[in-house]
Amino acid sequence: MYRTNTCGELRISNVGQKVTLAGWVQRIRKMGGMTFVDLRDRYGLTQLVFDENHDAALTEQANKLGREYVIQVTGTVNERSSKNNKIETGDIEIIVEAMTVLNASQTPPFTIEDNTDGGDDIRMKYRYLDLRRGAVRRNLELRHKMAFEVRRYLDERGFLEVETPVLIGSTPEGARDFVVPSRMNPGQFYALPQSPQLFKQILMVSGFDRYFQIVKCFRDEDLRADRQPEFTQIDCEMSFVEQEDVISLFEDMSKHLFKSILNIDMPEAFPRMTWHDAMKYYGSDKPDLRFDMRFVELMDVLQGHGFSVFDSAAYIGGICAKGAATYTRKQLDALTEYVKRPQIGAKGMVYARVEADGNVKSSVDKFYTQEILQQMKAAMNAEPGDLILILSGDDVMKTRKQLCELRLEVAEQLGLRDKNKFACLWVVDFPMFEWSDEEQRLMAMHHPFTSPKPEDVELLSTNPAAVRANAYDMVINGVEVGGGSIRIHDNELQKKAFEILGFSEERAQSQFGYLLSAFKYGAPPHGGLAYGLDRFVSLFAGLDSIRDCIAFPKNNSGRDVMIDAPAPLEQAQLDELNILVDLKEK
Amino acid sequence: MYRTNTCGELRISNVGQKVTLAGWVQRIRKMGGMTFVDLRDRYGLTQLVFDENHDAALTEQANKLGREYVIQVTGTVNERSSKNNKIETGDIEIIVEAMTVLNASQTPPFTIEDNTDGGDDIRMKYRYLDLRRGAVRRNLELRHKMAFEVRRYLDERGFLEVETPVLIGSTPEGARDFVVPSRMNPGQFYALPQSPQLFKQILMVSGFDRYFQIVKCFRDEDLRADRQPEFTQIDCEMSFVEQEDVISLFEDMSKHLFKSILNIDMPEAFPRMTWHDAMKYYGSDKPDLRFDMRFVELMDVLQGHGFSVFDSAAYIGGICAKGAATYTRKQLDALTEYVKRPQIGAKGMVYARVEADGNVKSSVDKFYTQEILQQMKAAMNAEPGDLILILSGDDVMKTRKQLCELRLEVAEQLGLRDKNKFACLWVVDFPMFEWSDEEQRLMAMHHPFTSPKPEDVELLSTNPAAVRANAYDMVINGVEVGGGSIRIHDNELQKKAFEILGFSEERAQSQFGYLLSAFKYGAPPHGGLAYGLDRFVSLFAGLDSIRDCIAFPKNNSGRDVMIDAPAPLEQAQLDELNILVDLKEK
Repeated sequence: MYRTNTCGELRISNVGQKVTLAGWVQRIRKMGGMTFVDLRDRYGLTQLVFDENHDAALTEQANKLGREYVIQVTGTVNERSSKNNKIETGDIEIIVEAMTVLNASQTPPFTIEDNTDGGDDIRMKYRYLDLRRGAVRRNLELRHKMAFEVRRYLDERGFLEVETPVLIGSTPEGARDFVVPSRMNPGQFYALPQSPQLFKQILMVSGFDRYFQIVKCFRDEDLRADRQPEFTQIDCEMSFVEQEDVISLFEDMSKHLFKSILNIDMPEAFPRMTWHDAMKYYGSDKPDLRFDMRFVELMDVLQGHGFSVFDSAAYIGGICAKGAATYTRKQLDALTEYVKRPQIGAKGMVYARVEADGNVKSSVDKFYTQEILQQMKAAMNAEPGDLILILSGDDVMKTRKQLCELRLEVAEQLGLRDKNKFACLWVVDFPMFEWSDEEQRLMAMHHPFTSPKPEDVELLSTNPAAVRANAYDMVINGVEVGGGSIRIHDNELQKKAFEILGFSEERAQSQFGYLLSAFKYGAPPHGGLAYGLDRFVSLFAGLDSIRDCIAFPKNNSGRDVMIDAPAPLEQAQLDELNILVDLKEK
Repeated sequence: MYRTNTCGELRISNVGQKVTLAGWVQRIRKMGGMTFVDLRDRYGLTQLVFDENHDAALTEQANKLGREYVIQVTGTVNERSSKNNKIETGDIEIIVEAMTVLNASQTPPFTIEDNTDGGDDIRMKYRYLDLRRGAVRRNLELRHKMAFEVRRYLDERGFLEVETPVLIGSTPEGARDFVVPSRMNPGQFYALPQSPQLFKQILMVSGFDRYFQIVKCFRDEDLRADRQPEFTQIDCEMSFVEQEDVISLFEDMSKHLFKSILNIDMPEAFPRMTWHDAMKYYGSDKPDLRFDMRFVELMDVLQGHGFSVFDSAAYIGGICAKGAATYTRKQLDALTEYVKRPQIGAKGMVYARVEADGNVKSSVDKFYTQEILQQMKAAMNAEPGDLILILSGDDVMKTRKQLCELRLEVAEQLGLRDKNKFACLWVVDFPMFEWSDEEQRLMAMHHPFTSPKPEDVELLSTNPAAVRANAYDMVINGVEVGGGSIRIHDNELQKKAFEILGFSEERAQSQFGYLLSAFKYGAPPHGGLAYGLDRFVSLFAGLDSIRDCIAFPKNNSGRDVMIDAPAPLEQAQLDELNILVDLKEK
């Protein structure tokens, strides 16, 4: 071992001890005949002292050190005269008696500090240096801790972690698969799993009863800030359970994580909201409940008074921003521009301030009497000093989604999206199907094995679009961190579901054949859910992107810029795999 | 929840309780007016009782159940009159009052018993049924437990589990990579990692200090019983350590696993053997030390007496099989045939029995006096009743390997390879390089970053083939379960190693560029090792093949016969990926 102690370990009680430390040079300062070096490792920083008057040669050697040099020093722990209460070792320093330079370092292209001067691109190229920064390392430490606590929690409750294969078959349905040519089976391909969904259901048929896996999944999609081609799921499944059993166990697991990792006590029971209410009151199936600003429908109040925009609308809805009547005209114009951006697509925005005397001043005053405006104020539950923002449109769902974006933006501006506050929620009663304009048919909202609510089974024949599923999402701060469902275990019900989805028997067989075969040999009732570990960790760490909690993430083109992958292959490799590259003209 | 208790839970103390159980029908027996059903779940078996005299309709329903039906029953726990001490619930039975058939089952194609009547192929095709067998399930439970204990052990010692990417770049060196075409980067490919070697070294450069990961790795090789295209490694790396630090920590971890999983106390320190001694005394770098039968070199004793086979040999070596003088001529002929098989390739075998009176009777008596044979007996440390087996050849290493095969076969026949006995061993001081006839150059025995022993560094310039590495393997019962090395962290030493390996600077750069770049910014001394989880579990479970501890293994053609993968892709998928299938005539 190159050290007796780590750089985060020594305290006042160690004074007088002879120790050996090893680590990286964080900083060097010269003061008079003294040289101070901050030595860093994963565990902390320790101040080293070299004194010219005691050992000129050694101090000279220390003066030649550069940032990020790796050194080993032996010396005596000494009480500092001026203590540093910002670091845990701040009471002591090491009077160095011997030093070995274990490795020199070139000057790093950016500073190894929490607030670095390095931009995103250079940090990713030199990710090995970026990972030295405490800010990044702490995210990965948190990730380790969360994954470990999940395992401990589930192990204690009888869940078995079973590894499912990475080299599986491709299913053309859904998102794109990554594929892998098989050398031993020429012309054939494996696919990388988008999730272990079918395998975990197989494990339930096999009687494993309680399964989990923290597992890499793969999706060949165009990337965004919160998407990576490979991502990690906490994947779970249980047998002989109903929706309530799954929800209650995983709610408890989440509370355990909040308590054990962040020391936060969550409320006894997470609130629950139907998908229908979530859309109605927040315009989203993953509402951010750290703040209120619930939608209020204003059709009754505002229609029929001659304002043609509202009079012709299929939906008029408002939100009340508490205390935001101070918004200037400029700020309001900016908000209007915000909702009119093509990504959101609103036609315009109406606003109304509640003044100190209770009067309402709106941008559409000429159409509305103060009496009507007072009715609106009452409907919105608005008080003096509040700002009411209203959107309308001819497509109810679209307008709600626009109002959702407005709500989030205003909350952001008002500082209501506090990263240290956590609002958890179960969204339940998802529709079983959603209409696809593209495919001109009903599609499964979760996946084709999702079970309908028992009380809605009859609707399958009469009004399938109205059937609610035993499906549930766990939402935290407006992020869907997990979701799942109770699965269909009855063959007749499954056939019905395939029929509604327009799957012929052959198509169902070719895509899910082995699961359907397995179901013939005694499938238990089962259900489960999956969490996105990357998202879960990001939330706990207060990050804006999942990238920051992944050791070696890929950029928006799916490239790892540090290792420069993907890359062309050698011809011999392609030959062995029986494939040719066929670049099309673009 | 469909049950109040599991099928493995109820005891005599539960008598009188009303319970609900759910599970699979294992067996049905009718006796008089009674029907007995064994209900099975992951946790055990519970006997259900239906009595015609109490409820004829219900008993009628029970009589119609088939094997593997999934049912839910409610009833009262009753003390059995004839107890079954083979199962933990054998003191009780359930007097059933109500039953629901949750799912019917077709008759399974083989029996769901520890000793099934199903052959390998059918069991793999219906793996979901095979996994219901206790014998298979227990292996996966063991796997879960071992992986969890490894994580707990390493977590407690400050190791961080860091996920390294699955989509990386291909390195043409070494075994074949599986590759993945990138849609977003046309004509370019990712590769699946054969191990996270370079990434874990990067993490050490990043200051992570102690890393581990239980991780899938991939190798596109032709398969054998103990090889799978995807396999799982326990991958570990530490900074600021020397060989002794790594060995002592992981020896302790192994002892912890033996104790916590199998309740076996291993000896204080595992024996260690140099690679040189392992080859000399056991003809293998992974000797099975559950039994002795060390090689004894007999050149001095047996050469020069007119037996031309021995006189012209470069190596003569023998093993002493205790108490095996009873071997018949037929058994000895079979052994001779065994070593003459082309896979082993010996020319013949000489044997000698030590008779009750101490005389030695050998198959080459006409060449040797009893005096010489007695010298041989003494050299072999043989006693009356022992059998001496001797091989010779003109290639020392080849002959030793043949003798190794003979030693293992004889031990197998003598019942010395007891699966409940565990002999652990560190093999150390591996040669740094080995000569490749194919490549006509020295190759790295571990990998090109393996560090030489400090005392052998000078030999790099004068006699590189003699340089020993700081490399070590953990061997249990003749299986290499883990191996690793201290890595080179010094740039000059690394250059020297590349030079000896015949790597040009460009080649080194193109293959390991990012690691070499990282090393310029302050690499700490580091080292580690990796265990094969599949092998480790197989050993603990006493299995002959790693396949039996993998939930969904592939066959020797790399196929998953349950899901029927790999398979051809649709043309549209290939088009999007810019590749063509190009099947060659064979």
